Amino acid sequence: MREVFQQELREVQERLVEISTLVAISIENATRAFTESNVSLAETVIADDDKIDIAAAELDELAINILARQQPVARDLRIVVSALRISASLERMGDMAEHIAQLARYRFPEKVVPKSLRPTFAEMGQLDVQIARMLVELLTTEDVKIAEAIRNEDDKVDALHLSVFDKVLGETWKGQAVDTVDATLASRYHERFADHAVSIAKKVQYLATGDWVPQGD
Amino acid sequence: MREVFQQELREVQERLVEISTLVAISIENATRAFTESNVSLAETVIADDDKIDIAAAELDELAINILARQQPVARDLRIVVSALRISASLERMGDMAEHIAQLARYRFPEKVVPKSLRPTFAEMGQLDVQIARMLVELLTTEDVKIAEAIRNEDDKVDALHLSVFDKVLGETWKGQAVDTVDATLASRYHERFADHAVSIAKKVQYLATGDWVPQGD
Repeated sequence: MREVFQQELREVQERLVEISTLVAISIENATRAFTESNVSLAETVIADDDKIDIAAAELDELAINILARQQPVARDLRIVVSALRISASLERMGDMAEHIAQLARYRFPEKVVPKSLRPTFAEMGQLDVQIARMLVELLTTEDVKIAEAIRNEDDKVDALHLSVFDKVLGETWKGQAVDTVDATLASRYHERFADHAVSIAKKVQYLATGDWVPQGD
Repeated sequence: MREVFQQELREVQERLVEISTLVAISIENATRAFTESNVSLAETVIADDDKIDIAAAELDELAINILARQQPVARDLRIVVSALRISASLERMGDMAEHIAQLARYRFPEKVVPKSLRPTFAEMGQLDVQIARMLVELLTTEDVKIAEAIRNEDDKVDALHLSVFDKVLGETWKGQAVDTVDATLASRYHERFADHAVSIAKKVQYLATGDWVPQGD
């Protein structure tokens, strides 16, 4: 019985790693679709979001099932409760990747943002991809040092997010309304993607310490 | 023992109602601050968000505590698991109200959006307030008919959200970049507020039916 239970907890962790891997692939594809105006890659990301949604819902069901049958306590309970929260954040990260891909598809064959902002979005995209890869590593190893590193990368994304507004609201901005809308939304999606990774990092820290951390921002 | 447990489950439900009431007050204040450029009301909303964050985290702790001590099954387990998801959505609704208030404060003494968009935002704001009140009612009564009504209101918010982009990207739009950014963000916050209410409505339906619903959008 105990053996079965430990196997189930390992499965929860493995599925979190699997879903985070899907998210990492999607954000890589989405940021490439975005920067290269690659519409078929954008469509791949949009189609793949369903897989992430389904995998997250299945993980939720497994977690609820474990709670009902195994009635875990202490660290085992924390693993299952965290998994429920982490799956919700991963699902939202998939949505952000999808939204970024949708912007690329809407504007095709045009690029989504004007030249002056492209280096900023290239950098934000690289940071999001980097954060997604760190998240896979974090969920695999539960090494809290990686959680700290994700927060640092998120700070860089936040700074770039603010710099997008500085540019769009600055005197040299020559974009049309459509460019302003796209830059605003794209920047917000990139920033939220990283925020969700930080939420997950906090939940992994909770696994280690037992201290539940408020979500607030 | 059983008696204590039932009392604890009632407390979970009561706290959800309390937090949703705080959210309803915040969105009322936020949309008023937004439409009337009322900076002191905006600051109230921003300060009150901490209360929502703390109340949501405390509810999470209670829920985890109940899982550990009472090891609920069947509908009792669904109540506790749903509460964990609902608290996360309520916390985000509080954030959306805060973001709307922050826009009002940033632009003070100017209004946040140009005249041509004000009726649209007034309507979106009223719908969000309406949805928040329905949510309090839903969490109080668990009447799934209200869940359905919330989805209908959310459809109206989505339609208004799209109409904002139609205006901003239309030929008659004369807004500056700052107006375009504000309209984009404000519309997104209003729309997300309603989306989170729909997520909660789905979780209340899960309480009634036992069918876990994917989050995906």
